[in-house]
Amino acid sequence: MPPLPSELAYVPFVSVEHMMGLVHHIGIETVLRELADEIEADFKRWELFDKTPRVASHSDVGVIELMPTSDGEMYGFKYVNGHPKNTKEGLQTVTAFGLLADVNSGYPKLLSEMTVLTALRTAATSAMVAKHLAPKGSTTMAMIGNGAQSEFQCLAFKAICGIDTVRLFDIDPAATAKAARNLTGHGLNVVSCKTGEESMEGAQIITTCTADKQYATILTDNMIGEGVHINAIGGDCPGKTELHRDILLRSDIFVEYPEQTWVEGEIQQLDEGHPITEMWQVITGQAKGRTSDKQITLFDSVGFAIEDFSALRYVSKAIEGTAYFTRLDMLADPDDPRDLFGMLERSKD
Amino acid sequence: MPPLPSELAYVPFVSVEHMMGLVHHIGIETVLRELADEIEADFKRWELFDKTPRVASHSDVGVIELMPTSDGEMYGFKYVNGHPKNTKEGLQTVTAFGLLADVNSGYPKLLSEMTVLTALRTAATSAMVAKHLAPKGSTTMAMIGNGAQSEFQCLAFKAICGIDTVRLFDIDPAATAKAARNLTGHGLNVVSCKTGEESMEGAQIITTCTADKQYATILTDNMIGEGVHINAIGGDCPGKTELHRDILLRSDIFVEYPEQTWVEGEIQQLDEGHPITEMWQVITGQAKGRTSDKQITLFDSVGFAIEDFSALRYVSKAIEGTAYFTRLDMLADPDDPRDLFGMLERSKD
Repeated sequence: MPPLPSELAYVPFVSVEHMMGLVHHIGIETVLRELADEIEADFKRWELFDKTPRVASHSDVGVIELMPTSDGEMYGFKYVNGHPKNTKEGLQTVTAFGLLADVNSGYPKLLSEMTVLTALRTAATSAMVAKHLAPKGSTTMAMIGNGAQSEFQCLAFKAICGIDTVRLFDIDPAATAKAARNLTGHGLNVVSCKTGEESMEGAQIITTCTADKQYATILTDNMIGEGVHINAIGGDCPGKTELHRDILLRSDIFVEYPEQTWVEGEIQQLDEGHPITEMWQVITGQAKGRTSDKQITLFDSVGFAIEDFSALRYVSKAIEGTAYFTRLDMLADPDDPRDLFGMLERSKD
Repeated sequence: MPPLPSELAYVPFVSVEHMMGLVHHIGIETVLRELADEIEADFKRWELFDKTPRVASHSDVGVIELMPTSDGEMYGFKYVNGHPKNTKEGLQTVTAFGLLADVNSGYPKLLSEMTVLTALRTAATSAMVAKHLAPKGSTTMAMIGNGAQSEFQCLAFKAICGIDTVRLFDIDPAATAKAARNLTGHGLNVVSCKTGEESMEGAQIITTCTADKQYATILTDNMIGEGVHINAIGGDCPGKTELHRDILLRSDIFVEYPEQTWVEGEIQQLDEGHPITEMWQVITGQAKGRTSDKQITLFDSVGFAIEDFSALRYVSKAIEGTAYFTRLDMLADPDDPRDLFGMLERSKD
């Protein structure tokens, strides 16, 4: 019998099924709240992170990206693809997985699916930011674009910002019907709307999350009244925006990581040098967030590696003592590190 | 009962145990030969590859790197760490895993351990290159540095270059004893030597693979006679070299990817502009390899992403129809791509 791999050879792995089980085990709203806390804690120590730009490999039909970051103790990266044409072929536009490793040894410490986890962390980030920027006492959110991310957004804003009503709109009524059905029983008043204008009636928060690749204008200037908070999720690659430029000019704009947002976010439409505020500075009190009732605040979100890092670290802690992971024999760990070949030889017996 | 994940949700995974089983199933020398063929085929279409530089995250004690590449059809990357101090703690200096994905869909198609696989591909690359550069009819190799890579090198040179004798030397006699023991029964004459000079007696090929981090001088100029081929594996990061500069000045130098080798290879010691030859050009006949019996050829190898890509593609084909992999539920693949939340909800039942 070949000797069993040592404990060090194993990497905890969270499959899609285990991730879903973990979410139900903890409760989705608790997960969203705890994730938001984890992300906020990392925004507070933003300067400490190694912020490598994402490494993209482009093709005619999509992109595959690696998004690494490190806080000096742990290293994390996410693999994520973006293939808009996949939907037509019955595939996900975006799939993702991530890894957390120990900086001191270089050994991987967690491998996890990140398709479900990214949906959760994106929603948690949006709501955490809105907690800082949206009008106090906000109760109603317009949710424009009712695709894969929409229900996660609605629940995160309920759990973290206290929203009680969501007003859904999508150019495809079937998407709205799907989201409304999925949100049943989650304690939200769900209103299905026939136009974007209708969805914004009485809303203090407007979330846009559409999947158009071209420069689109989901929101035009005359649709936006004063005092609202706009949470713009859908614009997240070069050439993909959702808001009319005039809205940007009326708003105070908050971003995750300027170097990335200038390339991928709504602010692609603006001239370089236009004032923007980094969200971590608002959270640490170094910059102002909302300063008046009439101000339009805009979170131009593209998703940043640190949010994935926070999410992976959260999962790494959350699975401890549960059955929501397996262990992968992913690392060769011979008794004598110099004797890799001997390990191979002995495995023959 | 929640519905089972679709076929598309699964990613084949090759564990360390499965990799070792696969190697024994095929036979290690056959694996080395087939890997060399696969790598050589990719060197022949070198220009076609997307050659992103590796993305490194450095700390005081080591480095974690992502090495991505793509041929336009498949995308691959390797995660690899380098922590020289790990050995003292009973850990591997280098651990690695890799992923292959479909460029057209962005979906991962293989996840594999790469600690064992990297040892195999490094040896296969060395021997494939030596097939082009070493003196014809070479029978004897000096193997200097008898650590984790050494036995793989010896077998690859036997399988691919027809070497029948290896002369082992390491500053630690225990390492030499380990390598000699491991090589027993593999059809090689194994000679354990007490000095570097002794190991080079009668050798047409000299392989150096030591793990020193500092600028070391494993080979000095007076040790090297004319006509030999030097296969320098150990110098593979900034500040880590093995050969005296004078040897470089007497040699014709061949490299994988100049941009990387200038930073990581033996040629760190040379002035910019010193003539070097890219190995893919030798293999395609665009540049000359060995042109005389008296010439010293030097392969300044640092390991390049394309070799990992070739190795992952080889494994991906080799596991077909075998039991040497499992399937990971790593990708969320709901029936309706827009209904990720619905998939999560239904998993509760």
